[in-house]
Amino acid sequence: MTRMTAEGSERDYVQSIERGFAVLLAFDAEHPNPTLAEVATATGLSRPAVRRILLTLQRLGYVVANGSRWSLTPRVLTIGQHYAATHGFVETAQPHLLRLAEATQESASLAQLDGSEVVYVARVQVRRIMSVAVDVGSRVPAYATSMGRVLTAWAEASVVDAVIAGGLRRLAHRTITDPTTFRDALHRVRKQGYAVVESELEDGLLSASVPVRDQHGDVLAALAYSTTAGRMTAEQVVDKVVPLMLETAKAISDDLRLVGNHAPLPSIPARDGFF
Amino acid sequence: MTRMTAEGSERDYVQSIERGFAVLLAFDAEHPNPTLAEVATATGLSRPAVRRILLTLQRLGYVVANGSRWSLTPRVLTIGQHYAATHGFVETAQPHLLRLAEATQESASLAQLDGSEVVYVARVQVRRIMSVAVDVGSRVPAYATSMGRVLTAWAEASVVDAVIAGGLRRLAHRTITDPTTFRDALHRVRKQGYAVVESELEDGLLSASVPVRDQHGDVLAALAYSTTAGRMTAEQVVDKVVPLMLETAKAISDDLRLVGNHAPLPSIPARDGFF
Repeated sequence: MTRMTAEGSERDYVQSIERGFAVLLAFDAEHPNPTLAEVATATGLSRPAVRRILLTLQRLGYVVANGSRWSLTPRVLTIGQHYAATHGFVETAQPHLLRLAEATQESASLAQLDGSEVVYVARVQVRRIMSVAVDVGSRVPAYATSMGRVLTAWAEASVVDAVIAGGLRRLAHRTITDPTTFRDALHRVRKQGYAVVESELEDGLLSASVPVRDQHGDVLAALAYSTTAGRMTAEQVVDKVVPLMLETAKAISDDLRLVGNHAPLPSIPARDGFF
Repeated sequence: MTRMTAEGSERDYVQSIERGFAVLLAFDAEHPNPTLAEVATATGLSRPAVRRILLTLQRLGYVVANGSRWSLTPRVLTIGQHYAATHGFVETAQPHLLRLAEATQESASLAQLDGSEVVYVARVQVRRIMSVAVDVGSRVPAYATSMGRVLTAWAEASVVDAVIAGGLRRLAHRTITDPTTFRDALHRVRKQGYAVVESELEDGLLSASVPVRDQHGDVLAALAYSTTAGRMTAEQVVDKVVPLMLETAKAISDDLRLVGNHAPLPSIPARDGFF
């Protein structure tokens, strides 16, 4: 057996676990069934390293080989399920999301901040909206979305700074790219109690978000609705949809107070550029 | 830098990646916010090993410390999202699941086989049904569910053998525990084109499943509906719900033929007891 120093061992742990996730995440919409060589290119790892990792992940049941091509198995979903299992508010919110989606005939979502991005943690989808991919676990830039606006508006100053430091790049024709304008927008969200964002992430995409608070009054997640500018105007969303959303968010909070079993929200650290 | 033999290196990869996942999966409904010591107990790993792994996972953004307690971040959802991103049928099926859930006022799901268990890969939830936890990524024994019955009915003989070898334990008062009776039930499912299972996974739980086929006619997933025996009888489910489900499954298959971009279903290997 190879003996390693404590230091070497620690470095190896970090490196191989990091590489394991890098290989798992190399399977994406562009590479749903990559070859070993394609995974090596995508991750920047050597082919022998990728081979060892793929064989390990196969043994663990997360990937499977079909000839020379590899694919993910549904077992990877189990990892994400542990998030919902340990954060009860996701399940508590689900029927409320469904009712909101039925009432608006548009998709309803719950999202949380992860560094300078927003992650969908629950979603009831009504139809596909333009080209935005929006499964649970999907990530979008916080600064250009109504969810991110709500989550940043009530976050600590360091979170706002991190989002701005991450860069406010123009993604659509109305994207706010100026830090001061962005801080003003957050101030408005706090004052109004909701965020409506149009054509900032993608031209024609119109979304609204309201905060969902836990039993201590802290913002736990953003409840989001999205539609297209052709179907609704921002004014109509404010008049007709936002009141429904505020009711829905209150109903979720009331249920959380009753259930009381949701795990406390971790304070998500800003991304440190490890990958 | 510590030099390792190719063999030692391979073993280390397997071990640390395996341990990384073991620590991640130690966060569950019973331990939503474990201490380092609790993770060590749950995984059987030493505290120093758990400490190294938690710090690695924290650096990668998957876990976060709150004082002496740890919790998962929403970033773990991103791993599962890569399954949907690489298996387009999940997104294609989503609006059909919603319509079925609206029509039946019960939850609608899509599930696939993973060894001798069934994994939910998509779900529209209407209300919580008894104590069954049913988020995407949740796992239930294949032999005692209508989804498992459908997925096993059209699977290769080796899959059926593996499910039976996994053990047919009594879970509720009607669970089929005899291998021959189980094979007969699969034969009936193939003949009828659907499965209805009552009080086999849990007393009072009544579910129905139909196969969803890909463009080659192969069974890609099971479409499932579940209710409680108090709300509906098995006969009512067969008369009223199953026809709707067969229509829904056909509509999904038709869409898949149109879209044509879903990744081929990997043949999931039976579990090898690695963990």
